[in-house]
Amino acid sequence: MKGPLHGIRIVDLTSMISGPIATMLLADQGADVIKVEPPSGDLVRFLGAGKKGISGTFLSSNRNKRSVVLDLKTKQGVELLKELVKTADVFVQNFRPGAVDRMGISEKVLRAIKPDLVYVSISGFGETGPYSHKRVYDPVIQALSGLAAIQADRETGRPRMVRTIVPDKLTAVTASQAITAALFARERSGSGQHVRLSMLDAMISFLWPEGLVQLTFPGGEKSSSRTQLAQDLVFETADGYMTAGAVSDIEWKGMCEAFEKPEWLEDERFNTAHKRVVNVADRLKATQEVLLTRPREEWLKILDEHGVPCAPILTRENLLEHPQILENAIVETMDIPELGEVRQPRPAAQFSHTPASIHSAAPGLGEHSNEVLRELGIDEEAIVEFRAKGIVQG
Amino acid sequence: MKGPLHGIRIVDLTSMISGPIATMLLADQGADVIKVEPPSGDLVRFLGAGKKGISGTFLSSNRNKRSVVLDLKTKQGVELLKELVKTADVFVQNFRPGAVDRMGISEKVLRAIKPDLVYVSISGFGETGPYSHKRVYDPVIQALSGLAAIQADRETGRPRMVRTIVPDKLTAVTASQAITAALFARERSGSGQHVRLSMLDAMISFLWPEGLVQLTFPGGEKSSSRTQLAQDLVFETADGYMTAGAVSDIEWKGMCEAFEKPEWLEDERFNTAHKRVVNVADRLKATQEVLLTRPREEWLKILDEHGVPCAPILTRENLLEHPQILENAIVETMDIPELGEVRQPRPAAQFSHTPASIHSAAPGLGEHSNEVLRELGIDEEAIVEFRAKGIVQG
Repeated sequence: MKGPLHGIRIVDLTSMISGPIATMLLADQGADVIKVEPPSGDLVRFLGAGKKGISGTFLSSNRNKRSVVLDLKTKQGVELLKELVKTADVFVQNFRPGAVDRMGISEKVLRAIKPDLVYVSISGFGETGPYSHKRVYDPVIQALSGLAAIQADRETGRPRMVRTIVPDKLTAVTASQAITAALFARERSGSGQHVRLSMLDAMISFLWPEGLVQLTFPGGEKSSSRTQLAQDLVFETADGYMTAGAVSDIEWKGMCEAFEKPEWLEDERFNTAHKRVVNVADRLKATQEVLLTRPREEWLKILDEHGVPCAPILTRENLLEHPQILENAIVETMDIPELGEVRQPRPAAQFSHTPASIHSAAPGLGEHSNEVLRELGIDEEAIVEFRAKGIVQG
Repeated sequence: MKGPLHGIRIVDLTSMISGPIATMLLADQGADVIKVEPPSGDLVRFLGAGKKGISGTFLSSNRNKRSVVLDLKTKQGVELLKELVKTADVFVQNFRPGAVDRMGISEKVLRAIKPDLVYVSISGFGETGPYSHKRVYDPVIQALSGLAAIQADRETGRPRMVRTIVPDKLTAVTASQAITAALFARERSGSGQHVRLSMLDAMISFLWPEGLVQLTFPGGEKSSSRTQLAQDLVFETADGYMTAGAVSDIEWKGMCEAFEKPEWLEDERFNTAHKRVVNVADRLKATQEVLLTRPREEWLKILDEHGVPCAPILTRENLLEHPQILENAIVETMDIPELGEVRQPRPAAQFSHTPASIHSAAPGLGEHSNEVLRELGIDEEAIVEFRAKGIVQG
């Protein structure tokens, strides 16, 4: 069985994170994603820890794709790209605004040769405005979107970054949805269109429903961070960290019983959901004191029996062995020639009839240059010539 | 012009965050989302700060929808729901596993009356396994997915939560893509299917490419957190916080020039990209010392002139006034009867031909009960009777 996007071809000029992960999600779902790289390759190939010259991050952002190396600084390189676009449904780029005009691959140019193309532009800040010319890194969007303020130290107020690149990756998932929606619309209308997405837009829209919720009603901007639904529910037990939380009355009752603290049910500080929010500091302190008295596994069992949501706080290595993660088969192990065993998370959404799947690892640089050129009907002699000139590599 | 999902009807039984935001994203793109609520209403209506009894979070998770109140504990309530499903393309639910069987609205039942339905189940932990019966809250997924470990205090190793509900909202965006992909597949095949998504799957797949990257190669699990691309790039200036980062050699050169520290270019600790990573603590300390000497706006101007990525770290209130956010018109202000001015972020992805848009606020509880029942062809007399019995409310 094929994925839901089987039959779709995506020509992908993106590099780094936001674009590559967007198209990988679509490749997982069956799209034929052709990654077009410059002779130097996507920088992420070489960033961070890896094996045999390929980084874990590149592997996990580019699986299920094919790679073609074209030198787009040459006229013939651009012509070959256009031949490829003629066979494509989607074209994606995340250069800085203006670059595609200089490169001769603007929407106007490509739409002239492929009228129903879905043309996708992913940017840091949008195409106009004082930041549009800037190079973007993830922390810059964390700073501008309010995320670093949300994560600020509660006592000192000093902003803090979230230590995983949420804006980059969230932009990827958002882009994958937008591309899919444009493909759906094209099925019905026959028309392609230009889809534009900035990381700044993606993050503000993502954070808004609770992280920025106090901005919803003018005049309420300074309202307390009590509206923040996420709490610092980190507790130490006799032998490790865990989380537990009681929101509803029934969960609170369960927690008091599990803790053998029936007196808390009458406690003036805790006897309504509202008061438990107001007196959160007292409540968390009391919870911590109790949890410290026994080992984690005991607490998890007792709290679960009393219907209180709880979990161990896993280290990254622990995660591979957790029974729920094993039961779901979330982590897959593949054997890849030359690299050996490689772990990847399965595609998150499970389709009953058109399953997404991991069918190939991230490609070597230009691994499919010849194969793709042949599919375009370019003969061997011409391929040899393009290679001799460095227009095609790999 | 209509959004890309115009013509799609979604019957939405979800509550809280992950489901409602998923369908709101589709409503922004033109889908007709009918939110079916119990007489007590989605709990989020009443959670946190709000205005006239409607919370900001509810408003920002349910705009562009219609609300119908049905008592699904009654047989006639379920029959009415089935009538509605006959007119729908998508059915979404996020009850705990097993609940839809007890309620009589399992996939099997609904597919019998609407064969090409896209049936969507969003869960916390998946449908089987030791956690599947548990109620889920966002911190529980932060704990199990490695997010709390990633955010751990660097010095003490104590895990920390991210203070915005990333798992809930990320699951929403991931679900919106999966639903759209299933709709695309249905256009081509004519077949609906069951799409299942767990928050745990969504988060692990999201974190993996760099947050969990050391799990990629068996044997490398303990590798240093240096592979974390996100850094704590928070700096104090003479008058406020900012971020700035130099990754490439050319950016580093720009930073040294902007700081008037030409000697850093020769410094044995910093003169290659690799050494700048190894000696990150020294580098950030030196950067902090320089930035403290001048006001933020001056530094932003100077660093930008030297091509160094940088931005102010905005408070949540500042964000509304930032020139790039204003230029992009990211935040829209609507005037809503009874509520007055309400701010919402525009839908992130911009479609050139089928624009997404905010056309109505979140609905009152059961605001559209009558309207939707009439559309089903149910006559006024019957509606009055259903209302008298409490089967339909609002």
